Amino acid sequence: MNIAVAQSGGPTCAINASLLGVFREGYKNSEIDAIFGSINGIEGMIEDNLINLKSIIRTSEDLELLRQTPSTVLGSCRYKLPDVDENSEVYEKIAKCFEKHMIDIFIYIGGNDSMDTVVKLSKYFEIKKLPYRVIGVPKTIDNDLPITDHTPGFGSAAKYVATTVHEIIRDSSVYSIDSITIIEIMGRHAGWLTASTCVLRAIGEEVPHLIYLPETDFDIDRFIEDIQREQAKHQAIIVAVSEGVDLSSIEGVQTDAMAGVDAFGHKFQNGVGKALEHIVSERIGCKVRSVELNVMQRCSSHLLSKTDIEEAEAIGSAGLRAALEGNTGKMMYFQRISDSPYETVIRMTDASNCANFEKKFPTKWINDSKNNVTDDAIDYFLPLIQGDINFITQNGLPRHFTGLKRS
Amino acid sequence: MNIAVAQSGGPTCAINASLLGVFREGYKNSEIDAIFGSINGIEGMIEDNLINLKSIIRTSEDLELLRQTPSTVLGSCRYKLPDVDENSEVYEKIAKCFEKHMIDIFIYIGGNDSMDTVVKLSKYFEIKKLPYRVIGVPKTIDNDLPITDHTPGFGSAAKYVATTVHEIIRDSSVYSIDSITIIEIMGRHAGWLTASTCVLRAIGEEVPHLIYLPETDFDIDRFIEDIQREQAKHQAIIVAVSEGVDLSSIEGVQTDAMAGVDAFGHKFQNGVGKALEHIVSERIGCKVRSVELNVMQRCSSHLLSKTDIEEAEAIGSAGLRAALEGNTGKMMYFQRISDSPYETVIRMTDASNCANFEKKFPTKWINDSKNNVTDDAIDYFLPLIQGDINFITQNGLPRHFTGLKRS
Repeated sequence: MNIAVAQSGGPTCAINASLLGVFREGYKNSEIDAIFGSINGIEGMIEDNLINLKSIIRTSEDLELLRQTPSTVLGSCRYKLPDVDENSEVYEKIAKCFEKHMIDIFIYIGGNDSMDTVVKLSKYFEIKKLPYRVIGVPKTIDNDLPITDHTPGFGSAAKYVATTVHEIIRDSSVYSIDSITIIEIMGRHAGWLTASTCVLRAIGEEVPHLIYLPETDFDIDRFIEDIQREQAKHQAIIVAVSEGVDLSSIEGVQTDAMAGVDAFGHKFQNGVGKALEHIVSERIGCKVRSVELNVMQRCSSHLLSKTDIEEAEAIGSAGLRAALEGNTGKMMYFQRISDSPYETVIRMTDASNCANFEKKFPTKWINDSKNNVTDDAIDYFLPLIQGDINFITQNGLPRHFTGLKRS
Repeated sequence: MNIAVAQSGGPTCAINASLLGVFREGYKNSEIDAIFGSINGIEGMIEDNLINLKSIIRTSEDLELLRQTPSTVLGSCRYKLPDVDENSEVYEKIAKCFEKHMIDIFIYIGGNDSMDTVVKLSKYFEIKKLPYRVIGVPKTIDNDLPITDHTPGFGSAAKYVATTVHEIIRDSSVYSIDSITIIEIMGRHAGWLTASTCVLRAIGEEVPHLIYLPETDFDIDRFIEDIQREQAKHQAIIVAVSEGVDLSSIEGVQTDAMAGVDAFGHKFQNGVGKALEHIVSERIGCKVRSVELNVMQRCSSHLLSKTDIEEAEAIGSAGLRAALEGNTGKMMYFQRISDSPYETVIRMTDASNCANFEKKFPTKWINDSKNNVTDDAIDYFLPLIQGDINFITQNGLPRHFTGLKRS
């Protein structure tokens, strides 16, 4: 029996650890011969662009490097399968690829758009009475997949964001002048990553002084008042703001200029931090700067959370085991048993429960003033950023797996 | 005898390690009683705003935390001493502070503006026949101080930049489309930090494919041609560009590209990365993005270079020893003995040799096409980013020294 695995959607620091989980589980299983990697997500299955992972991942060092390499070593895609009624040809191509390479199981590591592919493909195989099984393994730094307690990749992103915001606090408080630092954090529709900055309170910091999420309405006058209230107490104000905060209610904001559309047709905003910097600068007038954490949030593998990376590997392995047990059309997920001591179990659910849905940050964890999050949120986030891994370095820099170099 | 120490200029990751060096050297010296910290650089001496460091730094853990805390625990200033002819009052205030607290030695940790203060103050004391000694200890992430082989703070900044650019390469090469990523790196007048990204070649990466420094003229047509030439070889192009690259020769750049428009229709000044993103997007047309490494370059202490931090501490100690031996008006510096094995010695020079000068990145290390640096530069940079330190962490995050909390 052969299996295939692919990676999809936006990069994270843990998606190669899940690939490693699938690979290790497959490697030790005597029933499994070839482990194929599909290049650029499902596109590799459509175009018959596969590689034999056993010929690429050969040493124990390769395994270690894979764990510490950000992004997707197999490449990724933003391709979403059409409905089978609209275009059955693409499904036939995929089925042909399964048949040609004698693939029984396909593991798809991705977010909610990828789970849509898991649903559609497993349904197609069922209708066509083909024996192929498809299992989804979650990942996204946005942490917005339903059912699962959290998603692999999120913990490492949160660890990077908290560590960096902590350092920006120090950088912001050197001069004896009033200042406001606005930090823009990823999350177009869900504020999980921005909210996670509250973990700094668990190490005695009062910052960010203010946190704004896309889950609540944004009022610019209230925002200015919030800052002024904090300025009465502190000289250097730190504000964490989600990139998805909706500024469209502000008079004069050119929503068209700020709006963009991604490859799936999702609308998104650009430059919330910069826009707020200008407004605050005009209305308050002290030193204001905005910092965009940009792609570093999703690729800073030098700050991996050990918890995240171990879970990512474990859920990859569990995905393959679930497929071997005969399951298809499922997504693996974490159920949290307790915060402290932190304990989770891996379960599975119909991928249709997760496809195309976004899980928002809970309203119960947003304070009444809608400018910060509650302490309960700290208990949720804290276990996810724990632990460091030992890196294989060369010349002072962490090495990456480049057995399948993409440049 | 009492001594005082202050920190000045822009924050770095190593400036507290130099403070630690001064403190440790002073602490173990039985001749020295109080070690004062001057708050916000020389301003603290003018305004008699000192703290007794022995009452703040009390445990061996405090010393360790100081080493891993970015920015300046004593605060900083951008204040430059006026000429004594213009304003002698400020000098009299400083002398009064020395006298009041029985301070014999003042160690000033800073960049070339701070060395100007060392020069002026030591001259004033000499003329007034006051026995006070003033020694400068260098720091700056820009690495642009003359005489010294390199400056404390630069190595850690270079390590952060190389590690992060390495990760951005992985992030940039996931999709099967042509892309250009422009990374804007600090250095207004000197390209050292941007040039240091060449160390990635020492771990087998071909990136950045292109490197542009403020030391050479910038030609936008040549820039576009350079990118197109690289695109013939690679799908994902990485360009490192110094924030100080001069775009003023580009027709229309002031109105169209550098001057952005925010969500309110207000024009604002863009960084070179954003400006080049717009130009490249217009003229080449594939996916283009710019990433600004922003203040993270100077405050990401979680990626300290052990070499940098040990040298920063050593040169702080050496500064105090030099003052105890009777020197004044001097700046401590590193002389490199060899690249491999890496060896340096600490020497001293008249601070006037360093004040107000900027050391540019050497032309001999820039390639003929002015779009990259030579391999000799790798040998220079590589020793500076070596080694990691063990962090004291709490709840998964590196802790900071907050005995003198500034917020």
